[in-house]
Amino acid sequence: MSLMDGLFGKPLASSSEEGERIGAAAGIPIFGLDALSSAAYGPEAALTLLIPLGLAGVAYIVPISISIIILLTIVCFSYLQTIESYPGGGGSYTVARENLGVSPGLLAAAALMIDYILVVAVGISAGVGALVSAAPSLQQHTLLMCLGILVLITLVNLRGVRETGVVFMVPTYLFIGTLLIVITIGLFKMIVGHGVPMPVVAPPKAPHAIAAVSAWVLLKAFSSGCTAMTGVEAVSNGVKAFRQPASRNARQTLIVIIALLIVLLAGIAYLVRGYGVAATDPGQPGYESVLSILVGAVAGKGIFYYVTIGSILLVLALSANTAFADFPRLCRTIAQDGYLPRSFASRGRRLVYSQGIYVLSVLAGVLLILFGGVTDRLIPLFAVGAFLAFTLSQWGMVFHWRRIRGASAWRSMLINGLGALVTGVTVIVVLVAKFAEGAWVTLVLIPALLAVMVAVRRQYHNVSMQVASQTPLKLTHFRPPLVVVPIDRWSLLAKRALTLGLNLSEDIVAVHIDSGERTMYLREQWSDFVEKPVLEIGMCPPRLMVLPSPYRFVINPIVDAVLELERKNPDRQIAVLIPELIERRWYYHALHNQRAAALKGLLYVKGTQRIIVVNVPWYLKANWDPN
Amino acid sequence: MSLMDGLFGKPLASSSEEGERIGAAAGIPIFGLDALSSAAYGPEAALTLLIPLGLAGVAYIVPISISIIILLTIVCFSYLQTIESYPGGGGSYTVARENLGVSPGLLAAAALMIDYILVVAVGISAGVGALVSAAPSLQQHTLLMCLGILVLITLVNLRGVRETGVVFMVPTYLFIGTLLIVITIGLFKMIVGHGVPMPVVAPPKAPHAIAAVSAWVLLKAFSSGCTAMTGVEAVSNGVKAFRQPASRNARQTLIVIIALLIVLLAGIAYLVRGYGVAATDPGQPGYESVLSILVGAVAGKGIFYYVTIGSILLVLALSANTAFADFPRLCRTIAQDGYLPRSFASRGRRLVYSQGIYVLSVLAGVLLILFGGVTDRLIPLFAVGAFLAFTLSQWGMVFHWRRIRGASAWRSMLINGLGALVTGVTVIVVLVAKFAEGAWVTLVLIPALLAVMVAVRRQYHNVSMQVASQTPLKLTHFRPPLVVVPIDRWSLLAKRALTLGLNLSEDIVAVHIDSGERTMYLREQWSDFVEKPVLEIGMCPPRLMVLPSPYRFVINPIVDAVLELERKNPDRQIAVLIPELIERRWYYHALHNQRAAALKGLLYVKGTQRIIVVNVPWYLKANWDPN
Repeated sequence: MSLMDGLFGKPLASSSEEGERIGAAAGIPIFGLDALSSAAYGPEAALTLLIPLGLAGVAYIVPISISIIILLTIVCFSYLQTIESYPGGGGSYTVARENLGVSPGLLAAAALMIDYILVVAVGISAGVGALVSAAPSLQQHTLLMCLGILVLITLVNLRGVRETGVVFMVPTYLFIGTLLIVITIGLFKMIVGHGVPMPVVAPPKAPHAIAAVSAWVLLKAFSSGCTAMTGVEAVSNGVKAFRQPASRNARQTLIVIIALLIVLLAGIAYLVRGYGVAATDPGQPGYESVLSILVGAVAGKGIFYYVTIGSILLVLALSANTAFADFPRLCRTIAQDGYLPRSFASRGRRLVYSQGIYVLSVLAGVLLILFGGVTDRLIPLFAVGAFLAFTLSQWGMVFHWRRIRGASAWRSMLINGLGALVTGVTVIVVLVAKFAEGAWVTLVLIPALLAVMVAVRRQYHNVSMQVASQTPLKLTHFRPPLVVVPIDRWSLLAKRALTLGLNLSEDIVAVHIDSGERTMYLREQWSDFVEKPVLEIGMCPPRLMVLPSPYRFVINPIVDAVLELERKNPDRQIAVLIPELIERRWYYHALHNQRAAALKGLLYVKGTQRIIVVNVPWYLKANWDPN
Repeated sequence: MSLMDGLFGKPLASSSEEGERIGAAAGIPIFGLDALSSAAYGPEAALTLLIPLGLAGVAYIVPISISIIILLTIVCFSYLQTIESYPGGGGSYTVARENLGVSPGLLAAAALMIDYILVVAVGISAGVGALVSAAPSLQQHTLLMCLGILVLITLVNLRGVRETGVVFMVPTYLFIGTLLIVITIGLFKMIVGHGVPMPVVAPPKAPHAIAAVSAWVLLKAFSSGCTAMTGVEAVSNGVKAFRQPASRNARQTLIVIIALLIVLLAGIAYLVRGYGVAATDPGQPGYESVLSILVGAVAGKGIFYYVTIGSILLVLALSANTAFADFPRLCRTIAQDGYLPRSFASRGRRLVYSQGIYVLSVLAGVLLILFGGVTDRLIPLFAVGAFLAFTLSQWGMVFHWRRIRGASAWRSMLINGLGALVTGVTVIVVLVAKFAEGAWVTLVLIPALLAVMVAVRRQYHNVSMQVASQTPLKLTHFRPPLVVVPIDRWSLLAKRALTLGLNLSEDIVAVHIDSGERTMYLREQWSDFVEKPVLEIGMCPPRLMVLPSPYRFVINPIVDAVLELERKNPDRQIAVLIPELIERRWYYHALHNQRAAALKGLLYVKGTQRIIVVNVPWYLKANWDPN
């Protein structure tokens, strides 16, 4: 199993769980990458919508950024209260379900899940897109690079939470550090130049204004800028991943993330206006990202420029990781309540919720393949879900405080109420501004996912009612089962299965597919090898039943024979003994047992309650020497 | 299962096999698409290499086509003899293995398998490439369209051989019909114009010659033209798919396919020279395929032009189907000899070798994704494999005739010998001409696949030696197993498992994961529901063993308890009874039994020969009403 160990890490014992928990330093890359990377594309997205306004439009980036920063601050305080009240993890689902009811909880969950899938696809393809615009010769490998990064992030996450933090720490802090340096230098030059700095590399001239400013344009620019806030939820949902005191560590992490994001957004907006950096049209030749222009203007295009741009690309591509940190936890919580398959709630070999990671990876991969690695058009979709979840969560907190009452509860309720109000308004703004561009898709997907979750829950309930019992065992019709042993040829496997069968019951039927010479040989062996020794200990010897099979099918005749035996013995259990070869080396697994699996599968499809399958393992030696 | 039925068709009974066989009319699309579609890209590939020679180069297409036609004719006669001698299916593998030995047989098989995988990827992407060059706005969806066609072809093939023929008949015959009409009109105009026809749409002027003709250029053009012959093998490998008289039907099919291909190749070559159609550079703007230019020149660009081009696109994209018809059969034959996992030899629900279809589809899909749907660079790779297989097959036939001797055998031997010689020379020519462009990859892949096949065979042999036995049953240590029943809560499942356990043995241990309140409740129920009724019939009541699990893990504590019981009872079998819920509706399958599967898997990994897993199925009702 050494390949598995190499890829996924050695399995962790359950007692290692404490050691897998993280502090704030690792928490920032794990839960903050999504939020922080938004500093790279939020301003860009807003400025792109301001292009038609020409140079005059650039100035509007400052009020838009201020609005977004105010929104961020409110949401931050709101979530700090949530973390304090829910030290066991207070995602939108938990908070909304506990305070508003099951339906609002599921609504928040569905919105968030869809959001995370989109974030993974969009984050990765944004990173690769930035790289491709820097090196156009890589364009033809776009999809391959996207899928490669997806596989990489998936593997890293399957290795466990703590290692993820270590891997992503370097690019995250490099990104923050270089951008802070750019902002510091820029501010210094602005002060020296009395507000009119000399750019090192002059930014391209802003295009002529072809439209006057309107509330609609500013609204759309604001909505685009908002797409950046999706990562905020992750910390409060992942409180349990932090070291003790978990709640305090989580709050510290959230504060640092938001504070850094505010500094970056404010600094970039101020410098963009100061240097007069207008966005260039991403679809046109000569396109250059806003941050690339800005870093060039502030610091020139030397080694520092390439380090900065490199860390931006990396952080964009890895921002998908936040979704990988939170999506599986979210699915686990929902699965524990029975609204998703229970396998989402079990941990894999590295104490992560592997099933959620696989599902997220596969769905994001499908999106990437469907869109060929170019997912720009998905961007409008993913703010709706996040802000819908925020609103429900804050609104839930309002009800939470109302239940608690008391003096301080009123103040807290006010803060969460304000949070609910502004995020609620933002949902409507984003939905209206982006409806035609794709936000409507979210409005279709969320109810669809809700319907699935309700159906899962109903089925689980249905099953538990079907198998419920409050009566004691009834031990009538007491008789050992009729044992069926499929035999191919005389071998140690056949001997073991027959011996086991004789241990279970006196009635044994060995079924064998007629295969000419081999069958004759088996018939000859039967009396000496089976009948004689069984008669010697005074038992009834197993019967050899040879089944004809003109087309050399193996599975179907055996299944038919078993069903026939079941019909003829209406009061008995039928136990089918299937020998299975167990390889000690995983790469030989594909060689065996498909027949056993097919036999079992077909028996389950065609069979009845009275047919039981007994798997008899036979362990093969890894280094077997015939001599 | 109605979705499965809709996608794959209703399962076919094995007795329907006769009805699934085909005649020559369906055989041509199934086994001939690959060969026939080569008329669309063979001349194009050769002409592209003649571009540097200018208009003078166009004339060389006639001798090159004649060489290819002669090669085709020889190979055709060769294969007609093979089909006659091997009415049970005479692919290269069978013929080479029976007459030359196992190693040459496996070499032919590996070469052919790699060839087929490449043919699927290249065929589909050539079709999509042609479509994209006609409608450039579709360019960004290249990969998606490739994968869509791959899925379509896979599904059609999973539905069975006969339906495949029906689906592909229309485009195949449309392709043949329209091209024959083009050739007829063209020849007529050539005669009327005394060898100098008036084009309806003038072809683009041939470029100026920038190189003189050389043997090397002609050799490379010939090699490129040869890439088209890969489909010839398919018919002789698939004789068994034909209706009786199978051998005659197969030979007729092969003759018709080759004859049509010769007419198409000759006609196109003659017209290309007559109309002076030079190839255009596929990488440059203004590119137009040779057939598109030719059809325009002969018939103008009206409705007929679009029907013709449409059928060419379709046939190119569907040419991958030949590989789907033959690859699974080839794998089956090899698997029957133990060189591939045996599952390749079992048939799926529609009597096709599903495993081979899946493997081919997945590998071709991986190639398409790796190359983003643009697989031009793979074209040089795939003639080597085909011609290597041809050579080994013909050479095997030479030895076949030598064994038979007799007057007519000498003539047959001569024909096959000639076939072996020309295809052998072609292998060397193609390998030399295309070595640097990628043919070397085949030389790496073929030995790798060979190594895998030998390893598979060795492991099967190893296993059969390990389990071999020539001694009778030894019936000592005779004792029923110790039965372990995991119990979650009191339910019909628990009752059924306990009842079954009491039928098998007197020693039963019920293991239960401590879960607080539920455990207390279960303990209370135990004496009334289990101990009392069991004591009443005079048996020893099952023991309830409660396992602590601080982290709420479920699987590991049970496995540990079973291993502990196994250690404490060194002379006994341990039978672990695992209840499984069987859903009658497939889309609920994902909801259950992952825990059962995980428990079984872990028991197999950690367990020993003495631990047996007993699956106890519980059938859920599809429409269960609690009232």
